[in-house]
Amino acid sequence: MSRSLDFLQPYFLGPQGENAQAFEAMLVELVRDHAFWRRNFHPEDGPSIRASAAHAPENVEFLDRMKTELFALSAELKRAVPFFHPRYIGHMNADLLMPGVIAHMATMLFNPNNVSPEGAPVTLEKELEAGRQLARMFGFNLDPEAGACAWGHLTSGGTIANYESLWNFRSVKFYGVALQAAAAALGFDPALGGEGKPLSAYTKWELVNLSLAAIIELRQWVARAFQDERGVEAFQEFGQAVRAERIETLGTAGFFQRHADLKPPVVMVPASAHYSWEKGMKVLGLGTANLVQVDVDGHMRLAPAALEAAVAEAAENRTPVLGVVAVMGTTEFGTIDPVDEVVRIRRDFRAQGSDFGIHVDAAWGGYLASMFRCADGSERPHAEMRSAFRHFPSEQVHRAFGALQEVDSITVDPHKMGYVPYAAGAFIARDRRVVDFITQKAAYVFDLGDAAESVPMEEKLRNLGQYILEGSKPGAAAASVYVTHKVLPLHCEGFGRLLAQTVHACEEFYDKVLALGERLKDLVRIVVPFEPDTNLVCLAINPAGNSSLAEMNRFGRAIFAGMKVDPDQPVQLKRFIASYTSLLRDNLPHAEGDRIAAEVGIDPAKFVAAPDGSAGSADHMFILRHTLMNPWLLREREGRNYIDRYLEYLEGEIRRELGNA
Amino acid sequence: MSRSLDFLQPYFLGPQGENAQAFEAMLVELVRDHAFWRRNFHPEDGPSIRASAAHAPENVEFLDRMKTELFALSAELKRAVPFFHPRYIGHMNADLLMPGVIAHMATMLFNPNNVSPEGAPVTLEKELEAGRQLARMFGFNLDPEAGACAWGHLTSGGTIANYESLWNFRSVKFYGVALQAAAAALGFDPALGGEGKPLSAYTKWELVNLSLAAIIELRQWVARAFQDERGVEAFQEFGQAVRAERIETLGTAGFFQRHADLKPPVVMVPASAHYSWEKGMKVLGLGTANLVQVDVDGHMRLAPAALEAAVAEAAENRTPVLGVVAVMGTTEFGTIDPVDEVVRIRRDFRAQGSDFGIHVDAAWGGYLASMFRCADGSERPHAEMRSAFRHFPSEQVHRAFGALQEVDSITVDPHKMGYVPYAAGAFIARDRRVVDFITQKAAYVFDLGDAAESVPMEEKLRNLGQYILEGSKPGAAAASVYVTHKVLPLHCEGFGRLLAQTVHACEEFYDKVLALGERLKDLVRIVVPFEPDTNLVCLAINPAGNSSLAEMNRFGRAIFAGMKVDPDQPVQLKRFIASYTSLLRDNLPHAEGDRIAAEVGIDPAKFVAAPDGSAGSADHMFILRHTLMNPWLLREREGRNYIDRYLEYLEGEIRRELGNA
Repeated sequence: MSRSLDFLQPYFLGPQGENAQAFEAMLVELVRDHAFWRRNFHPEDGPSIRASAAHAPENVEFLDRMKTELFALSAELKRAVPFFHPRYIGHMNADLLMPGVIAHMATMLFNPNNVSPEGAPVTLEKELEAGRQLARMFGFNLDPEAGACAWGHLTSGGTIANYESLWNFRSVKFYGVALQAAAAALGFDPALGGEGKPLSAYTKWELVNLSLAAIIELRQWVARAFQDERGVEAFQEFGQAVRAERIETLGTAGFFQRHADLKPPVVMVPASAHYSWEKGMKVLGLGTANLVQVDVDGHMRLAPAALEAAVAEAAENRTPVLGVVAVMGTTEFGTIDPVDEVVRIRRDFRAQGSDFGIHVDAAWGGYLASMFRCADGSERPHAEMRSAFRHFPSEQVHRAFGALQEVDSITVDPHKMGYVPYAAGAFIARDRRVVDFITQKAAYVFDLGDAAESVPMEEKLRNLGQYILEGSKPGAAAASVYVTHKVLPLHCEGFGRLLAQTVHACEEFYDKVLALGERLKDLVRIVVPFEPDTNLVCLAINPAGNSSLAEMNRFGRAIFAGMKVDPDQPVQLKRFIASYTSLLRDNLPHAEGDRIAAEVGIDPAKFVAAPDGSAGSADHMFILRHTLMNPWLLREREGRNYIDRYLEYLEGEIRRELGNA
Repeated sequence: MSRSLDFLQPYFLGPQGENAQAFEAMLVELVRDHAFWRRNFHPEDGPSIRASAAHAPENVEFLDRMKTELFALSAELKRAVPFFHPRYIGHMNADLLMPGVIAHMATMLFNPNNVSPEGAPVTLEKELEAGRQLARMFGFNLDPEAGACAWGHLTSGGTIANYESLWNFRSVKFYGVALQAAAAALGFDPALGGEGKPLSAYTKWELVNLSLAAIIELRQWVARAFQDERGVEAFQEFGQAVRAERIETLGTAGFFQRHADLKPPVVMVPASAHYSWEKGMKVLGLGTANLVQVDVDGHMRLAPAALEAAVAEAAENRTPVLGVVAVMGTTEFGTIDPVDEVVRIRRDFRAQGSDFGIHVDAAWGGYLASMFRCADGSERPHAEMRSAFRHFPSEQVHRAFGALQEVDSITVDPHKMGYVPYAAGAFIARDRRVVDFITQKAAYVFDLGDAAESVPMEEKLRNLGQYILEGSKPGAAAASVYVTHKVLPLHCEGFGRLLAQTVHACEEFYDKVLALGERLKDLVRIVVPFEPDTNLVCLAINPAGNSSLAEMNRFGRAIFAGMKVDPDQPVQLKRFIASYTSLLRDNLPHAEGDRIAAEVGIDPAKFVAAPDGSAGSADHMFILRHTLMNPWLLREREGRNYIDRYLEYLEGEIRRELGNA
């Protein structure tokens, strides 16, 4: 299938800097515009830097030093990784969209700090709007009159956004218990909804298994009831009493000492989840032992039955489940967890009195949602999408994206598949009222959500530093993301059109690598351990007849040696750059480990959890990993595109290494 | 005192964009250099973007859209805050050093990801070197052969660096308890140092009060002893046993359930500390109730006697002290805590068996350390420094900077007084071996610090993502900080020379505002609540004869109204922009609140913790806040510099408001 990539031509600086003139012209125009803006702020002051400065010896010396250091940096950067080029198919990096780069640079001259409107009257709005753009792509509601209203903001990266999800979940999960304890201390015991069960009659297990929406309502309802009964003046005392009981005040140790009848919570993630989840459990004091790694299936996707069993076991043991994480675009394989099934499982358990938050770690795959959305905001039907691809999207993948609107929060990294510069991650939440649980303000009124007195949500959110993990943050990153989304809207005719190319590239890579495997079957076995869901492909390669996993790993590493980033060599020596990963026996369902070993011709008994030193065994299988996000992978020259050339190169390396052996 | 500012002329773009040509020339040169670098990577591939692209209708339309959106952004940014101008004396923002801005922009084109060498072979080294540059400025040792060797890295800001300090402290503090439990489980009980006390004989209180250095040694010593006794093969089992007992595995709740005889730890900060410390206690699950706010003295500095009392009380109650935080450059007043006294207090308590980590939050003031260091690396004597200023530095401040080398870790924000763009914070630690306690790697060998097998520290640290809170991070920020430090080295003849100007500006502001107060004493009382330690000055202003705090606050807000950032107005309407803060009765030692109220002419009884609605009372005192970091504040025109002009403006506003009243 041949298709034109011409529409992509103005998006990027280009593999040969083809658009350098357009880029430079735009950048210089904005730099000058900025400089002359400066000149319009109190021009009557006259210059602070004299025209003669350029000739003063000390100044000349400074400029010389600056130039020397900048040139030295530039010289060293020539050993940087050529992410921009279609010969780079390693990590989640490619060329950057020009509008985002220029917007970042132009805004940096103003250097706004998006922590509050006093430091960023313009770009803070852009950040909140970028949050809305992403929320819309995921299908979240943005109309405050129509129920839960989403919000989002940028972070320095997905790792921080992942922490934020846990922080938010913890803040809300244990609020009901604090509220009950505070009410008891003050001898206040409202009947919920006016004639429901009294607050004191709830068990703690019930309180920690209220849905997020129910807790938000509970909080507001109890606050109003208290005000009605005791008057506005008593509010402060109540607010303090609630705060004193919260987990954020007592700390997790203190909270669970006070509530010895409650167990500390667990978080469930698929075994394929990024290492930042382990780190997050440590940082938040939740503990890695409370990170339940749920099995994945033969497609490296979270296995719903395993999740069901894990949640059932937790319910059985009365262990609160803080949250369940689904991954959209695993770091290693780009696979998509069945978000719809996670949502369904929550619905089932909710009906039985167990509840949990759902967070989607879509750091990598989040932007793919743009392919699943029509320009008018509606969902794009599966059949329409299928007609544009060979395999993509599977029924399961389509359903997963369709279910995003039902989850509580999502991590997505504009600096990955959003093609904007670092650092730009994002955290998007379905219900912005959660921020009332995490504000740093000592304002007791907010703390109890007094509707009459409270500041409008739109205004509150501008004090961003109150609601997020970070303090100072670059308005330039916000401008970069916002402008990129304006130029390429987050639907299938905008951003989705660019991302469709990455899926086309992946499909072509997949089909062609299978053909290569067939052709070389007398020399090596080439196996794709998991069919790609999106735009990453991994390859296991084993010399024909070899049954030693250790030898297979050695062979793989030898093949990879030439494709590895090496700062001691000029980058020009690299023909292609890929990445690698390891399949760990411990992280795989046993049957899958056996299957992959067998397919590649290795005795499954050699693929072990803990190597005992016996010949040929190992606890991991080395595999090549290819991220196919460069926009130019399918550009043809003399009838061959970059995928053809990479596979030719790979074949050459295989033959060379077999010859050496 | 008149002094030439001419040496500053080439540092910045300038209040009127005076250096626009030099800036543009350098930037364009590096952009072109980058574009042509691209062209040298497989030139034989030919272009992916055709020369004819510029004329294709779809491409023209894209460029039009990009230009429209970028121009719209640029237009909106004209309501951004003019941080660059000496008429801006509000928050911690000013013009940026040109080398840092250009380095950031130039590096962004390569977009390195400083999480690992595979994404950033060049800039990761720059980041670690920037860490060393800052460590050297603080006086930390950098010779691995000479004891504890420092390391540091960038963060997205000081808030994250502050969290990191707590995370590190917790990791180390409770390691001894985990080690003891694991050894007991395996029936292993070494006598420490060969013939010391057996590990099992230590009480838990003793173990949590070992110094950081002692725990590092303990860990290595026990690992070696275990290996000697049971052999290398048993190592994995031991590593797993230790991991299973760690607080990071069990979570804080689980750990303190298991060790019910240990209390959860507290963290001590001065009452003046930034709100990120409260947030940090929440995020890390430590709990704000365990944040001990230590009283400040009449100079808004941590009061050593109060700290001593707090630590003594904790020791009495057998409450572990995780860390004590000293602030260098409070957000509100720029005051400097007595770090030397904190170090002395630790020494005293250590002798009595109580220990704690010391972290310095020098997000604002850290760079001032460059003024206290000679070009040869030695400490700059107090007398020599004093001769260059009117008041600065006080004995206390000089001693505080001299003691930095004895603390465990330091937060410093290059994006504040380092004059580089957001986002660039930094975390610097005195002993890099701490990273072995927080690695995310499941590598049991590292986990026990097996000297024989372990990877050299320099190499380990390159896998930065393993040791820090964040994941992806911008190499561009690292290049920016590194190049800035190369051009302006971190000593008194480099960076210190620039910062000296901010102190000069502050001294001049202080002296002149006192004179203004004297001159206007029949109209208003102008009080500087705390003598400035560095380069911030706050002013309390009260109409003469007024004794109502509420009225004083109204008056202050009316004065401030004209200096406030207002995105609904052209910035050109602003004559000066300052910031404000509130003195909270609750955050001040009572006597200090009384003193300030009295000085300003307010009945101290009207300055209350909780306003009861009685006439004229308030829980806060509104004050104007001035950050004097702009390099051009002392630039004179017609015999008046920007401080003279600001004070004239302020006088006018005072008279106007008095006329209105």
